[in-house]
Amino acid sequence: MPLMKSWVKTANSADCPFPLNNLPYGVFETADMDPRCGVAIGDMILDCQAAEEAGLLDLSGEPLFDVPFWNEVMEEGPELWAALRARLTEILAEGSADQAEAEAFLVPQADATMLMPFLVSEYTDFYAGRHHAYNVGCMFRDPENALPPNWLHIPIGYNGRASSVVVSGTDIRRPWGQLKSPDHALPAFLPCRRFDLELEMGAIVGTASDGPITLDEADKAIFGYVLLNDWSARDIQAWEYQPLGPFQAKATATSISPWIVTKPALEPFRCNTPAREFELLPHLRDTGPMLYDIDLSVSLAPAGKAATQIAQTNYKEMYYSSAQQLAHHTTSGCPMNVGDLLGSGTISGATKSERGSLLELSWGGKEPLTLDTGETRSFLEDGDTLTLSGAAHGDGYTIGFGTCTGTILPALDDPYKR
Amino acid sequence: MPLMKSWVKTANSADCPFPLNNLPYGVFETADMDPRCGVAIGDMILDCQAAEEAGLLDLSGEPLFDVPFWNEVMEEGPELWAALRARLTEILAEGSADQAEAEAFLVPQADATMLMPFLVSEYTDFYAGRHHAYNVGCMFRDPENALPPNWLHIPIGYNGRASSVVVSGTDIRRPWGQLKSPDHALPAFLPCRRFDLELEMGAIVGTASDGPITLDEADKAIFGYVLLNDWSARDIQAWEYQPLGPFQAKATATSISPWIVTKPALEPFRCNTPAREFELLPHLRDTGPMLYDIDLSVSLAPAGKAATQIAQTNYKEMYYSSAQQLAHHTTSGCPMNVGDLLGSGTISGATKSERGSLLELSWGGKEPLTLDTGETRSFLEDGDTLTLSGAAHGDGYTIGFGTCTGTILPALDDPYKR
Repeated sequence: MPLMKSWVKTANSADCPFPLNNLPYGVFETADMDPRCGVAIGDMILDCQAAEEAGLLDLSGEPLFDVPFWNEVMEEGPELWAALRARLTEILAEGSADQAEAEAFLVPQADATMLMPFLVSEYTDFYAGRHHAYNVGCMFRDPENALPPNWLHIPIGYNGRASSVVVSGTDIRRPWGQLKSPDHALPAFLPCRRFDLELEMGAIVGTASDGPITLDEADKAIFGYVLLNDWSARDIQAWEYQPLGPFQAKATATSISPWIVTKPALEPFRCNTPAREFELLPHLRDTGPMLYDIDLSVSLAPAGKAATQIAQTNYKEMYYSSAQQLAHHTTSGCPMNVGDLLGSGTISGATKSERGSLLELSWGGKEPLTLDTGETRSFLEDGDTLTLSGAAHGDGYTIGFGTCTGTILPALDDPYKR
Repeated sequence: MPLMKSWVKTANSADCPFPLNNLPYGVFETADMDPRCGVAIGDMILDCQAAEEAGLLDLSGEPLFDVPFWNEVMEEGPELWAALRARLTEILAEGSADQAEAEAFLVPQADATMLMPFLVSEYTDFYAGRHHAYNVGCMFRDPENALPPNWLHIPIGYNGRASSVVVSGTDIRRPWGQLKSPDHALPAFLPCRRFDLELEMGAIVGTASDGPITLDEADKAIFGYVLLNDWSARDIQAWEYQPLGPFQAKATATSISPWIVTKPALEPFRCNTPAREFELLPHLRDTGPMLYDIDLSVSLAPAGKAATQIAQTNYKEMYYSSAQQLAHHTTSGCPMNVGDLLGSGTISGATKSERGSLLELSWGGKEPLTLDTGETRSFLEDGDTLTLSGAAHGDGYTIGFGTCTGTILPALDDPYKR
């Protein structure tokens, strides 16, 4: 599929993240406008609320865009999703009969502040990148037993905290927590010293279910994808995680990129999961390509200084697809709801420059990373701005995710002082 | 405090679970009535929606009872909570001027079906009963190292799945899951063979927070308590839980009792946490009695047969209070919302008959339990009905929680067949 041309001219370049082929969904506000749903096209946003009020987007008979989140569209189901995409494509395509009317509903992205694109029902994070799991296993166990025995058979996941999911651009306050250093007998309550990022993709559940679903049903149930940074307090995690898993270490914040890139935009980039040592059990076995070829990178900018790209990898490095994660999530009968968010798990490639966390990049702090500015990093410092970027590269066009950023604020002197 | 007398005569006996001293909050429907909020008094329910519409409960100027859940009352905050309780007490007290009018709004409990009393925002389960943690540690590790190193310093918890919380009376379908028995090299996807209950209390967060809160703030933020049964698939858990904790093993269902017993009703039953080997860090250190003296029991009835009481214990056996759990939950800055549910963790006492799970009662299946019917149980069988009961016993009155029940349905032959 080539670049599809739009009458929004900035959308028609090979490196524009938001061509007509993409049409990602977000929520924005401006100085003059309350929060509302919008669609990115070139350097503009189509104001869906205004377009709907003008009768340009009358798809279901009921208003879809009278609320500032995409959950209502998701609730309508895949037929509406397809009809909406088709209609948006028609409106924004070069030569569209709707151009004159729709032009009035375009807002420059430069004037907009992006907000959370959907209400997160529940949030689950997985541990499904093989290189990441291997690296972590080497550090905390040994290379011979790096992967836990279950790892090659199920996508290991744990429930996270939906209340802590924030949109890109939200500052991240370094947390306090209970820590115990190996050279102390007792724990202490202190600001986190090993605060980290995790480069992930987030899959958004668009169709509810109330019992086990097949892999194909799971693939169909996913509405779209975002970039996701699962901020992690490694020292809090080390002390708390046995035996029931990470808890406060992962509860400070999880940032997501503001634009939901939908499955149809990613369709040309489907690819297979890697070769497996053990065939998966039938309910998890691949039925087709359900991963995506999406280039990902991480940059770190110290306060007031230039950014250094610290990692570059690809979503296709995952061992399990989001569809496999969602199918596994339902095996016990667990009800899934519209707006559930599934983090892929940290995405790392085989080489050092492809590692999606500072834990891996600095090998637990033993091999600090040198930035282009000359500074070194084992873990995040106050004032650091982290930026995840992602894009799938087609033949003469780009499907961009935009960025997912966050700046580390220093821990409060006294977290209990109001 | 003695028994407070009501003009609803059935509320005036020492063993009635719902005297005027209690006034627990639920949601019910009848053959003629849509779901609505109600307050238990004796063997009746005061229909809050009808009482509000008649002007008997005009507390905030805005309707509180136009929705079938208690979240809106919680949102109003502690002053409204106190005013509502005072007004309900006034209406229902012996000699009330409102008796004639309020009598029309009473519905027999026998005619009502109880529904979920509130919308669960997120659900967290803890592991904060010392005897339970010790027993499990003895079984899976060894008596010398039964408690993990962190256990005496923080209330270990993990995020559960809010979508799986159901009200008492909901049938529980035995789940399928990925299991690996020790005598097989590879896992298999099978119905759970070691399905279990967990006797817990659930604390309901009534006040939202957006950063660390103190223990006193946490105690104030709790709206009330319910009985909670965290159904657990032990064989799924054994295979999946390393390294990130329980996931599908706990996602089939968690049952709660339908009546929220509020903090003021429990005030006379406050008691201290047990003596500690290690003083807690200041942010978790007890500032007053925040546990409650509540007698708890579990009974098991095989299909069509009489129930056997299989355990009897008390909520005061917990090592950490719900306030300590909530305070810990916020240390990293984790935002808490109205309607968050915190499971206490399994409550077991020191002796065998006080164990709150079949895992402990049958010692991992090695010492099957004999029921009064002569049958034995290691874990739950299809058709078994489990009933948790709870009550605080005052001087001539009872603060009852009612019961929390569930019947085990057989696993589906094929979980993917529609």
